[in-house]
Amino acid sequence: MGIKIATIGGGSSYTPELVEGFIRRYEELPVQELWLVDVEEGKEKLEIVGNLAKRMIEKAGLPIEVHLTLDRKAALQDADFVTTQFRVGLLDARAKDESIPMKYGVLGQETNGPGGLFKGLRTIPVILDICKDMEELCPDAWLINFTNPAGMVTEAVLRYSSIQKVIGLCNVPIGMEMGVAELMDVDHARVRIDFAGLNHMVYGLDVYVDGVSVKEKVMELLSEPEHSSFVKNIEGMGWDPDFLKSLNVMTCPYHMYYYKTDEMIEKNNKSAKEEGTRAEVVQKLEQELFELYKDPDLTIKPPQLEERGGAYYSDAAVRLITSIYTDKGDIQPVNTVNNGAIASIPDESAVEVSCVITKEGPKPIAVGDLPVQVRGLVQQIKSFERISAEAAVTGDYGTAVLALTINPLTPSDTIAKEIVDEMLEAHKPYLPQFFQKTEE
Amino acid sequence: MGIKIATIGGGSSYTPELVEGFIRRYEELPVQELWLVDVEEGKEKLEIVGNLAKRMIEKAGLPIEVHLTLDRKAALQDADFVTTQFRVGLLDARAKDESIPMKYGVLGQETNGPGGLFKGLRTIPVILDICKDMEELCPDAWLINFTNPAGMVTEAVLRYSSIQKVIGLCNVPIGMEMGVAELMDVDHARVRIDFAGLNHMVYGLDVYVDGVSVKEKVMELLSEPEHSSFVKNIEGMGWDPDFLKSLNVMTCPYHMYYYKTDEMIEKNNKSAKEEGTRAEVVQKLEQELFELYKDPDLTIKPPQLEERGGAYYSDAAVRLITSIYTDKGDIQPVNTVNNGAIASIPDESAVEVSCVITKEGPKPIAVGDLPVQVRGLVQQIKSFERISAEAAVTGDYGTAVLALTINPLTPSDTIAKEIVDEMLEAHKPYLPQFFQKTEE
Amino acid sequence: MGIKIATIGGGSSYTPELVEGFIRRYEELPVQELWLVDVEEGKEKLEIVGNLAKRMIEKAGLPIEVHLTLDRKAALQDADFVTTQFRVGLLDARAKDESIPMKYGVLGQETNGPGGLFKGLRTIPVILDICKDMEELCPDAWLINFTNPAGMVTEAVLRYSSIQKVIGLCNVPIGMEMGVAELMDVDHARVRIDFAGLNHMVYGLDVYVDGVSVKEKVMELLSEPEHSSFVKNIEGMGWDPDFLKSLNVMTCPYHMYYYKTDEMIEKNNKSAKEEGTRAEVVQKLEQELFELYKDPDLTIKPPQLEERGGAYYSDAAVRLITSIYTDKGDIQPVNTVNNGAIASIPDESAVEVSCVITKEGPKPIAVGDLPVQVRGLVQQIKSFERISAEAAVTGDYGTAVLALTINPLTPSDTIAKEIVDEMLEAHKPYLPQFFQKTEE
Amino acid sequence: MGIKIATIGGGSSYTPELVEGFIRRYEELPVQELWLVDVEEGKEKLEIVGNLAKRMIEKAGLPIEVHLTLDRKAALQDADFVTTQFRVGLLDARAKDESIPMKYGVLGQETNGPGGLFKGLRTIPVILDICKDMEELCPDAWLINFTNPAGMVTEAVLRYSSIQKVIGLCNVPIGMEMGVAELMDVDHARVRIDFAGLNHMVYGLDVYVDGVSVKEKVMELLSEPEHSSFVKNIEGMGWDPDFLKSLNVMTCPYHMYYYKTDEMIEKNNKSAKEEGTRAEVVQKLEQELFELYKDPDLTIKPPQLEERGGAYYSDAAVRLITSIYTDKGDIQPVNTVNNGAIASIPDESAVEVSCVITKEGPKPIAVGDLPVQVRGLVQQIKSFERISAEAAVTGDYGTAVLALTINPLTPSDTIAKEIVDEMLEAHKPYLPQFFQKTEE
Repeated sequence: MGIKIATIGGGSSYTPELVEGFIRRYEELPVQELWLVDVEEGKEKLEIVGNLAKRMIEKAGLPIEVHLTLDRKAALQDADFVTTQFRVGLLDARAKDESIPMKYGVLGQETNGPGGLFKGLRTIPVILDICKDMEELCPDAWLINFTNPAGMVTEAVLRYSSIQKVIGLCNVPIGMEMGVAELMDVDHARVRIDFAGLNHMVYGLDVYVDGVSVKEKVMELLSEPEHSSFVKNIEGMGWDPDFLKSLNVMTCPYHMYYYKTDEMIEKNNKSAKEEGTRAEVVQKLEQELFELYKDPDLTIKPPQLEERGGAYYSDAAVRLITSIYTDKGDIQPVNTVNNGAIASIPDESAVEVSCVITKEGPKPIAVGDLPVQVRGLVQQIKSFERISAEAAVTGDYGTAVLALTINPLTPSDTIAKEIVDEMLEAHKPYLPQFFQKTEE
Repeated sequence: MGIKIATIGGGSSYTPELVEGFIRRYEELPVQELWLVDVEEGKEKLEIVGNLAKRMIEKAGLPIEVHLTLDRKAALQDADFVTTQFRVGLLDARAKDESIPMKYGVLGQETNGPGGLFKGLRTIPVILDICKDMEELCPDAWLINFTNPAGMVTEAVLRYSSIQKVIGLCNVPIGMEMGVAELMDVDHARVRIDFAGLNHMVYGLDVYVDGVSVKEKVMELLSEPEHSSFVKNIEGMGWDPDFLKSLNVMTCPYHMYYYKTDEMIEKNNKSAKEEGTRAEVVQKLEQELFELYKDPDLTIKPPQLEERGGAYYSDAAVRLITSIYTDKGDIQPVNTVNNGAIASIPDESAVEVSCVITKEGPKPIAVGDLPVQVRGLVQQIKSFERISAEAAVTGDYGTAVLALTINPLTPSDTIAKEIVDEMLEAHKPYLPQFFQKTEE
Repeated sequence: MGIKIATIGGGSSYTPELVEGFIRRYEELPVQELWLVDVEEGKEKLEIVGNLAKRMIEKAGLPIEVHLTLDRKAALQDADFVTTQFRVGLLDARAKDESIPMKYGVLGQETNGPGGLFKGLRTIPVILDICKDMEELCPDAWLINFTNPAGMVTEAVLRYSSIQKVIGLCNVPIGMEMGVAELMDVDHARVRIDFAGLNHMVYGLDVYVDGVSVKEKVMELLSEPEHSSFVKNIEGMGWDPDFLKSLNVMTCPYHMYYYKTDEMIEKNNKSAKEEGTRAEVVQKLEQELFELYKDPDLTIKPPQLEERGGAYYSDAAVRLITSIYTDKGDIQPVNTVNNGAIASIPDESAVEVSCVITKEGPKPIAVGDLPVQVRGLVQQIKSFERISAEAAVTGDYGTAVLALTINPLTPSDTIAKEIVDEMLEAHKPYLPQFFQKTEE
Repeated sequence: MGIKIATIGGGSSYTPELVEGFIRRYEELPVQELWLVDVEEGKEKLEIVGNLAKRMIEKAGLPIEVHLTLDRKAALQDADFVTTQFRVGLLDARAKDESIPMKYGVLGQETNGPGGLFKGLRTIPVILDICKDMEELCPDAWLINFTNPAGMVTEAVLRYSSIQKVIGLCNVPIGMEMGVAELMDVDHARVRIDFAGLNHMVYGLDVYVDGVSVKEKVMELLSEPEHSSFVKNIEGMGWDPDFLKSLNVMTCPYHMYYYKTDEMIEKNNKSAKEEGTRAEVVQKLEQELFELYKDPDLTIKPPQLEERGGAYYSDAAVRLITSIYTDKGDIQPVNTVNNGAIASIPDESAVEVSCVITKEGPKPIAVGDLPVQVRGLVQQIKSFERISAEAAVTGDYGTAVLALTINPLTPSDTIAKEIVDEMLEAHKPYLPQFFQKTEE
């Protein structure tokens, strides 16, 4: 009768935050079983993080059962909520996503450009496989996905699976709200942003404190480099104030890759040279975290976790699950089926918009059409997401080349093809859909 | 009672083609008066080309009166058709449009990127001024515009003037049809392409010979460098065959700037170094043409004119005017008000689509929505056109920076601003709307 | 600094409910000034109801100032919220709206068919006049309109005035929620309905108790006559269960006029014969109420008021104002600008949908497109509302005939014309826009 | 190698017109085989009409083979065009469609209201069965359907079959053009109407002679009773001139059932009493025609055929087939898939609009959205068509009741149910989909 949560990729370093969230909201959301699932290669991490989870819950004195397992089906059986936070190919694959494009003068980043495409190509077949299991084992469960690229993954689930109770979750919008709270020196709860766009391509159409628009003020502050990012993993570079004022909507940190492409590539390359790729930096952070997690005296989420780019992700997930479970009707920005919220995006596509969260899931607030100045780029990324998802499902080589060529970060069809060729080879073990065919 | 044509920019080197067109179609389109108008600086050219026009008509033995004038109002008075083919700032301005962006590593091209923006900023106020005159002097006339950037200019007229009988005309679609005719070794009249998109951003959704689709064959041929362009002024670079097959629609030559950006910049820069900018090349061509035109024994359009990029432009114009005048109901690709033809473009925006040409003007054939793979880029260019038109009308500096930043050929807001700054200064005499304000 | 409310039509018998609402929610919504405005003919009622209001507030011990005035401009000056609940031509005009159509075999009803048209024709010029005053005296105020036909009036304000902060309010959706609460024997607060459609043409796309759909159960109960209406002034007639099950959305009471036209006309005619028109019944009710109101010992809203059809209207208004003032973010069904919420209704039109209520006003939840089975009727009423609003503004006779002819309750253009002719004459003093012209 | 035509319902009295059409256009459309197919009950008529066809062709001296068969599959095998003009249940069924509704005070008409619904319920399963055969035997053939209700049937084929090369054809638009030609005293070829709407619910948005709008003049003439219909089987009743002027688009004859419902019901009932139902009148006409057809000396289409309501139907079909075959590119009004032509109708629905006719079929000219004054009624009929098609396919009783209740000619759900009950019983042999289920 109690709530059963299945967390795919349960050995992730983010899990303690998730557990902390369940503990903190236990009164509203009485979780009975938490199943942390992982694959064979992640077994050790699963043990470490799972034991920390058990200690945290024990300390909180709550009757939440924690199950650690490599048996995904057992975890999914009758689950109420399935959360996904896995990484196909682990950080090694990410390192390749980040380093290979660089050789071609193209942005090497996990969720945008070639990296985003290949992370999608590796992830989508796995998520669709999970969906197939869900159809059988827990067809009424909600799938809360935080695996990146969350927009493309949500699009793929909506289009290529029968699981329609899927929500993509990202910490960027929350980061933007928290950033505004800090800029305006008010409590997070007093800030509201009208979000509209796509994952990692979301805009704040307006920004309020206590319901009163503060957009103008926020936009001024946003021009300054130190304020132009809201997430730990992207260093802000500032916006040209004339550009930003005319753009007239709040940007998200990832917009820097599109409106400051050259500078961002240069910065990424420089920091890769100096500190290694982001994957390598994260690898070190993770090792440190897991060292901390091993400490049998640790019974709380260590504060160091908040230094990672994905901070608040898991908290956002628990907040979302709680609102669904309690039919709360509060407003949260999530990736969900458009259903007319943004006029020129297909009804059945995924969008990232402010939604009312009910027991029936998120109900997007109508945006009408996006402001003309941002409509084009959003459409372009949506086209990229849709073609990429198609490539992931079909394993068609030309579709992958097409996806990368139409991506605004790619300088040409020729370079797209070279990158696709090298990355297909580099990720071969995780991309059977592309190789089984050609080998036939 | 006969037809009166007013040609703004009548001193253009293309005029003989226009005249040839009127001669050839005289039976269907009995032009009585042709008014060639130009500005003071163009007076000499107007005389040369005007006299050639008179000789051509005399030789043809037709009762068409040719008037040469600097008085635009006299030319517009009671005109039935107004054609526009002027160039604000002449080829000197074009040379700047082509050379300044290069310094910033950005494409220097007349109708795309920074060059397209600034050509629009210079041209739109003039065309709107012509529209104001038309409201008063010939409110029922059709405005047939071939002044580039034709899409942006048509958008501006539709949005910022009361003249709604405006058609933007480009030789690219005709070039594509003729190119296909040549590739397939059939007569031009047997080829039909379903065009959809925007000016210089138009796709062939399908291609027919005698009504039977030959798209697959054409797409194969298009991959080869020698076949990938259809206009004299863009040398084809070939398409990656896998990309093109997946794109699954026919490209226009200008797509090379978007899908092969780096290669095209490199090629442009190289040829600018070796042969001068395109403006300089054209300047020479023009001088040669005008030398030919001066010859009092010349009574035909010299064949050398066909070597220019704009070949067939004027012929297309006469074909269009004829179909309007005779209510012919044939299909021609033109820039006109969308009215729902392309689903996610606003009804009131300009699009370049196959239209049925009637006495009431072009009626676009419904496209539904564009294929997903091209929808994003088309939307992005439409956003660029709309913001650029707004900047041209308001003279707002930030809007100009915004327009250039969201253009897919621009690498960042910072570079956009630098280019805008230098180009505003370079074109100052032709951009009073930006300077009068700030000087107040 | 406190909140100022201006209530146009303050002498209405509903005012005590409004006052009760302000008293009950004073803590959240600290009203400082309540201005009750009325016209000369309503002076006496205004005095009676105004004095009751004063006694109610005094009893509650709250520092709300009540002002009674015939000077609308004084009331509007710096108001924060303007509520409108007036009736042009009073109940005498309503009696004509109800009785004249009957002679032609057409439904005589206040907000539907000919009655709805003529109530709109009389009301819209007055509301637009109020809007003009608001532009000058309180441009930032919210206009909360409960004057019927609320959908048509909201449409007219949105299209023909610069006041865009307008909300149309109706007690039907609340009545439906309360009806469901009663049917399901749960507290009102536990019921939520996904509303979509137009005023008096709203559907419940789904119905929840505690967030769980109970639509199927509710639909079964709705088939029974005693449950098929949710408002006091329409007696339910039951639905054919097969029809309702296939319709598959919850109806509102007014749908009986459209899906049971003949029965409803017959019933209306019968009851008019037996008890007089609804206007006459209401007139008696009102007299009784005003008798009660006069009692100097009465210091509360008398329970008899709840017997009127408009019960909960004023409470809904106070709930709405409170949510706007406190930026509450709760969900309420109101008439507001569509902005893409319902796909095939124009963005700028008024719709009645579930909205999140914020300080910036209602933000509609995206519906996508309406279910195909109800789309046609909703579009037809929207067409009727738009043409009617146009007739009200232009005073064009043919437009009025057109509006009535396309109304689904009208059997022919000829009858439409006859009704328009008789009703124009009957309401002549309140329809100057139709007569000044023809007399010129 | 020559063209093969299969005509389902080949024994129809209209067939001689079809044959005449093929003869007249033989040069452009060299038909090699014409297969006239019919069912057992129609065998005698098939023989009669088939022999006339053979005599007509022999007289014309053309090498068209005429095949008469009851074997539909043989006829469909490798056909290039399939035309359908059958009548499930013959004129007896029509008589019931016309007479039963009358008893309930509802319009009894073949293609509108209850008659339209039941004709659809009988016809759609048969047409879908033909489509199944076509998938197998002639998947590339065009299906040209003139079986009524042509809009609903086309909708059903588009939604419930894989045959997408389907065109619904009606003689109403041609009748309107011919009527205008007569009114304006010009040749038919000089008239063009911009058609938009649905079958039997089509409007002329504008009307031209030689490309110049004559709408205003035509609308004036249309108000007069003698000019308000354009088809033989509907006697015009005139329009109120104020209504028509405000409607501002040209009506089709069937609009009289919607804008003059009461008068039309009365007129229909009166004429049914005096002359019998239309079915009975037609039955007599048919008998007379077949008597004529039997005459072995008759070698032409007898002029009496033009007196029937369906005149020009078959000629329109041959004109359409010729334009497809020759890729003519002329404009014809047909029922085809919307594909965005009318903005608020789904892309995949059938609409009746002016199209360019090519070898690839009809390409609709973009309408944008319909004028607001007609949008509602068109949407309502589209909803009716879609629900009716669903009822025809599923055989669901409630869906049939729903379809009829939402039809604007039906006064209530209760009456809808009574009519459905009686008509289901009356047409039982032709509606197995409704009875097999309930008997299970």
